[in-house]
Amino acid sequence: MFVHHVFFWLKDPGSREDCAALVAGLQKLSKAGMIKDFHIGQPAGTNRDVIETSYAVSWLLLFDTSEDQEAYQTDPIHLQFVKECSPLWSKVVVYDSI
Amino acid sequence: MFVHHVFFWLKDPGSREDCAALVAGLQKLSKAGMIKDFHIGQPAGTNRDVIETSYAVSWLLLFDTSEDQEAYQTDPIHLQFVKECSPLWSKVVVYDSI
Repeated sequence: MFVHHVFFWLKDPGSREDCAALVAGLQKLSKAGMIKDFHIGQPAGTNRDVIETSYAVSWLLLFDTSEDQEAYQTDPIHLQFVKECSPLWSKVVVYDSI
Repeated sequence: MFVHHVFFWLKDPGSREDCAALVAGLQKLSKAGMIKDFHIGQPAGTNRDVIETSYAVSWLLLFDTSEDQEAYQTDPIHLQFVKECSPLWSKVVVYDSI
């Protein structure tokens, strides 16, 4: 199992429209064939010192193999997503774990 | 779906023993009854600017509801894990998303 977890911060953190556009983009991106499972989320409202709550959107992907994750990086659906949606975000942090 | 993703940094990052002890603790913790699914991981070896690779262990939990995650926080199995394993880590970062 390969876990690919991406957190997005928006250029305009207060924009509900931008957030909705990013989520819509991720929903399209979720059709990439090598994705085993995915979850699109937003901060849950929990609040302790150790909890990072400043991001706008969480994009959790599960792949069967590292190769699937590599193939996803260059899949046309992924490249199209980056082209369309990257103007929306100011920062991305990725955690890949196996 | 409630996604609870925890990243641990070890006090002694070079210690394979401490890493193994933390993973063993998480395996015990995974028996907590309200956990729907879990994944214990380590950095995948991917390497781009946006990828955080400095943590030692990734602990991904899926819960059906926010209430299950709340109950997990005070479950005796969780409290025992914190008691036994917290001396191992120097930093924890948590992302909760729904």
